[in-house]
Order: sequence, then C-alpha cells, then structure tokens
Amino acid sequence: MPPGGSPRVADLGELALLDRIAARVARATGAAVATPSTAGVVLGIGDDTAALRWTPGALVLATTDALVEDVHFRRATSSSADIGWKALAINASDIAAMGGTPRYAVISLMLPGDLDVAWMDGLYDGLLEMAGEAGVAIVGGNLAQAPVIVVDVTLLGEVAPDHLVRRTGARPGDLLAVTGTLGRAAAGLVVLESQERAPGGAPRGTGDAPDDPALGRLLTSQRRPKPRLREGAALVETGAVRAMIDISDGLLLDLWRLCEAGGLGVRLDAGRVPVDPGIAAAVAASTDGVGGRSNRALDLALAGGEDYELLFAVAPEDADRVLQGLVEKTGTSATLIGEFTGGGTSRTIVDGGGQVRPLDPGGWTHFKGDLR
Amino acid sequence: MPPGGSPRVADLGELALLDRIAARVARATGAAVATPSTAGVVLGIGDDTAALRWTPGALVLATTDALVEDVHFRRATSSSADIGWKALAINASDIAAMGGTPRYAVISLMLPGDLDVAWMDGLYDGLLEMAGEAGVAIVGGNLAQAPVIVVDVTLLGEVAPDHLVRRTGARPGDLLAVTGTLGRAAAGLVVLESQERAPGGAPRGTGDAPDDPALGRLLTSQRRPKPRLREGAALVETGAVRAMIDISDGLLLDLWRLCEAGGLGVRLDAGRVPVDPGIAAAVAASTDGVGGRSNRALDLALAGGEDYELLFAVAPEDADRVLQGLVEKTGTSATLIGEFTGGGTSRTIVDGGGQVRPLDPGGWTHFKGDLR
Repeated sequence: MPPGGSPRVADLGELALLDRIAARVARATGAAVATPSTAGVVLGIGDDTAALRWTPGALVLATTDALVEDVHFRRATSSSADIGWKALAINASDIAAMGGTPRYAVISLMLPGDLDVAWMDGLYDGLLEMAGEAGVAIVGGNLAQAPVIVVDVTLLGEVAPDHLVRRTGARPGDLLAVTGTLGRAAAGLVVLESQERAPGGAPRGTGDAPDDPALGRLLTSQRRPKPRLREGAALVETGAVRAMIDISDGLLLDLWRLCEAGGLGVRLDAGRVPVDPGIAAAVAASTDGVGGRSNRALDLALAGGEDYELLFAVAPEDADRVLQGLVEKTGTSATLIGEFTGGGTSRTIVDGGGQVRPLDPGGWTHFKGDLR
Repeated sequence: MPPGGSPRVADLGELALLDRIAARVARATGAAVATPSTAGVVLGIGDDTAALRWTPGALVLATTDALVEDVHFRRATSSSADIGWKALAINASDIAAMGGTPRYAVISLMLPGDLDVAWMDGLYDGLLEMAGEAGVAIVGGNLAQAPVIVVDVTLLGEVAPDHLVRRTGARPGDLLAVTGTLGRAAAGLVVLESQERAPGGAPRGTGDAPDDPALGRLLTSQRRPKPRLREGAALVETGAVRAMIDISDGLLLDLWRLCEAGGLGVRLDAGRVPVDPGIAAAVAASTDGVGGRSNRALDLALAGGEDYELLFAVAPEDADRVLQGLVEKTGTSATLIGEFTGGGTSRTIVDGGGQVRPLDPGGWTHFKGDLR
C-alpha cells in the first residue's frame, strides 16, 4: 500500500476484495431485508452459485450488458458510483422493455491491479443505490484482473406470461409511441465533453454538478439514467401494447431494430419527436462550435441514444386509452411519433416541412461508425 | 475486409455479428430442439431479454465467471473453440458443486475491433459443443468492444430445494473427499508452456494434439475441462453430502474456502491425495528443468487448480455408501483425503512421512501471488 494512500486492488488480493464486496452488499441488504427482492434469496454472495426461489408461474427474464472503460466511460469524467448505477440501470431498462420486474443481479468485475480499492467501493455504492431503487438483490459475481475496467452485469427479472411483450408483434397501421423526452443523455455528453476541454476540466461525477440546474439535469440523464420500470409494467398491463424496445442506442437505430424484428416498414414523423426542451440551450452553451446548427437538438433526439425511454407499438383504437392510462398511473407522458406500415423495406422519416426521406439507422453500434 | 482474408469484427459491425451468432446458436439448437434444456426457452437471442419457463418448485442457481485474454488464456496457445468450451465449462462446474442441473446461459463478449470474425465463430463452436454436452441453451448475450478479449458467461441452473448443498454445513469429524485425480490441468499447462519454448512452437488447440496420448490427455484437461455434473447430482441425491465446492484454484485454496465458510479446521493427508498418474512422466518430459524434483507432481495436484473436481464433506458413517454409490452411478471414484476438525484456525497438512505442517492456501488468486 502506498504510505498514507488508498490501498490498491492488488494490495488486498481476491479473497479480501470479495469479503469487502460481500460486507458492502450485506450492509445494504440488511436495511432492506423485508423487500420482495431479497425474500427469495436462499443463497447469495459467497457460495459456488446463488440459489433463488422463483415466483410460481412467472417467466424468468435474463439480460446482460457491460460497461467497458474508454469505450463506454472514462474515469476522468465519471465517478465510479455513477458507473455502478449506470451498469445496473441499463440492464434494468431491458427488463422494463419486457414490462418485467427486475429481481436478482450478478456482477462480473474486471479490474486492473493498480486500481484504488476506493474506486471499487464507489462502484458498489452506485450499484447498490440503483439496486435499492429497482428492488434488485445483488446475489453473486466474479472478480478477475484485466488491463481495463469492465463492469458486466447480468440481471434476472420476471413477468407474468400473459404480459410478455416482445420486439415482434406490431402490425401495419399500428401507431408508434415513445415515453418521455429524447436527447437528454446525448446533450449531457456534449456538455461533459465541452466542460472537459474548458479550463478547470470536467466535473467528476454526480455530486460535483455544474451551477446551472438545467445543465445538471442533462448530466444526470447521462450519468444516472432511470430505467422506465413502472412505465413498462403499466404498459404491458393494458394488454394493448403489441411490441416494445428500450432506446439505448438512439431512436433511429432502436426503431430500426423494432422494424427488423417485426418485418415492418415505418413512417416516422420527425416534427412530433419529443425533443427535450433543455437541449437547445445546453447545446448553444457548449463550446463545441456546432450549437448554431438549427437541427442539432433534433439530431441528438433522433440518434443520440442512452435516454432509456420506451418505444412501443399500439393499435390506433387503443392509443388514447394506453397513453392516458400511462400518465395517470406513472405521471409519465408518451407521444405518438409515427405509424408502422407493411412492406419492411419502406422506412421513412418525414421532416417538419413535409419532406419524406429514407430512415437511416444512424444511432451508434459497436465496432462500426462510432468509437463506441 | 482485407483482400482474400477473413473479415474482421469491425468490418461486419454489431448488427451483422449478432445475426451471425443468433444463426449459429439456432443451427445448433435446431438439432437439439427436443431436449429439456431448450423446451423452456420462450424467448431466446434477439429481444431485450430472454424469457424462460422455470421448473415449478425448483431453486434457480445463478453463477458467473469470465476468461480474460492474457490473464486466463493466450491466443497463441489456445484455439477459440477451446476457450469457448472452457468459458462455459467453468461455470457449469459451479453448478455441479451445488448438485444442480445447468439450463440457460447468456454470453457477454468483449472483442477488439481488429479480431478475425473466424475467431468469434470458433468461440461459439466451442461454447455450443459444451452447451450440447451439458444440456444448456444459450439464450442471450451482449457484444462490446474492448482492447482485449473477454468471454464472460452467466449460467443459470436449477436444483431441488432439498438437494441444495452449500459450502457451509460440514461438521468436525466429517471426512473430506475428492472426485477423480488432481494435477492434470496444471501439468497440461506445464506441457503447453514447455512446447511453446520448443522449436516449432505450441500446438494451437484441441485437434492439434501432440503424438504422445498421455500428454494429449493432460492438454485436454487444461483446454477442455469436464464439469462433474453427473457426479455432483449423484452426490447430493444421497442426502449425505454436507458441504461441497469445485476445485478451480487448487485443492489447498478451495479447501481453505470450504473451511472458512464452515468455520472449521482440517487435517489433510497429503499421502492420500489422488495425484494423477500421468503427471510425473509429463513433468519429466517437459523442458522446464524442474521435472527432477520429486514433489513436483504432488505440488501440481495440491496447488495447480483447474481440474474442476468436486471436494466434499461426508459423515464417517456415510462415507462408504456415498463413495460406492458414486462409482456405481457415474463410474467416477472419489478418495478420502482428510478430516474436518473443530477450531477454525487449525488447518494442517500431513505429509507421507507423518510430518504435520500448517496448511498454506497456496493456490492462485487474482491480483496476488500469481500472474493470473
């Protein structure tokens, strides 16, 4: 250990690190031991596997998603607590897109040996905060050495069999709807990168927010996304949502995925897309020099990604009831932004002036077209 | 794509890679669609989450374990098919240590953009081979970019609630037993490293085996470990196994974990440890210059790890019945190698000459004491 400094991961060794994690999770779980999420944990951290008692008749949902250092985050601009929160939140968002309830998580961590142990502690703080919000019990994991940090989460959840909503199932004529507003998280990233280039550097995470509350809200969207769990559950309970996906990689790309899954075309009305009202000012205030482009806010809303809103299909005759029920139950609005069509190759976007263009799935995917 | 060459991961992009994986899994699953492992898959690869129908009343087991390039394997000495096999096998071994049945896996892959797509294809070949042997359905996963290859598997399985055997539960006076023989995988690594230094370099994986079948057997133990699934199930069905763990990091370290979990001491009889008979010749034939040490084979058996045998506690009055039942049901022998004692701090090893020494958990852990 460096004299007076924080111990490094390699100073403690695997057994001590695992004890540290188990104690941290036990403390957090002890405070919430009566919640449904922990009641089914027969065996948690510390054995060969976790052992879980499942709700009879429920379908088990399973999803996995990872955050990789210098691909999805950088240590310079995100606190480890934010990264922990986000690693679990993006998985919970996949459960939300099935209308399900998240229950149990296993955390596979890869850490460089010279990483401060305090970083790992912070990561678990964030994981446990999100776990508390989402009703999730962390029941196991793995620890390995690697040249970069990887936080890989597998999340299990459940849904009633008759509430299962897939990516397939939309029909020609169905309306396309999206919850909340779009572009927040991408604008938050623009702000972050702009501040990093400014004198003094970027804030290091939630708790070190900028003075302007509007900018702070965008940064929070980027760092601490909120999975739409209540909204997903409310939507599938109507029985009228025919297909659903969460927006992780941008409206255009995730809409493309929804169309591909269903073999459908779509006509997206760009003028109806709920661009977050806070974006324009943030983009203008940023120093990246492109704030003046009039379509910048719409671009972020269409292709930015990471808002984790829900995109879904609903029959025209059910749309009013579904959207009204959603806002009544959850306080969250949804907006109709287009219509599915037959003929899978016809996917178009109509701009405010009525011009029709081919829809280009211009979100980002790994390995191609973008650094991430 | 390089002219005439294999495409790279970055050439195809995420969507095409996922299609490729889904098609590969579907082909393999199509051939085995009537197996119990796939019957419960309501929704597999291609949606936001997998949806699984669980056996009523069963406990769900969940475990995760990763293989990291240049930490757990090197591309130069392992084929990607071997790495795929092993990534799933080491997780199945954790399920075996609970006496459970593996059912569903999600695969989180991290790949460098310049990796040949053929490497990824080979990885899935190996994953699917092991999945076929273990009755596992691959139901989802994730793909992300990273500077090194990471194959992170989460495996779900099940066990009857009254068959659940934990790491805790052994009592003072219980006998300690281990399945099979020990040291094979570690000796395989010695052979591999020795061959790599020899002219011509190392064989590149299973199928490129050395001429000597005894050496080939050791290499196979290192590259394609077989989880003791039938043995684990047979042991818990006796109702007489009080605690169990699989040996991933070496007999001494995993025995230490078993003692820690139960708050027990132990007296390990080194003379009874089932050192694999093939090791001595292999170590002597290797060019690492330490083959002459008489205790080398025993060292590998005690601290080598990666044999994935099962280490368990059984009451003295049940031992004969349990060991005989095991060999009758599975063809696998187990050996009694020591005795648990009260007083958690007294953990000793008795050598062939009757000398008693303190037991040092000298297997390897991540971050400390060893490169891995």
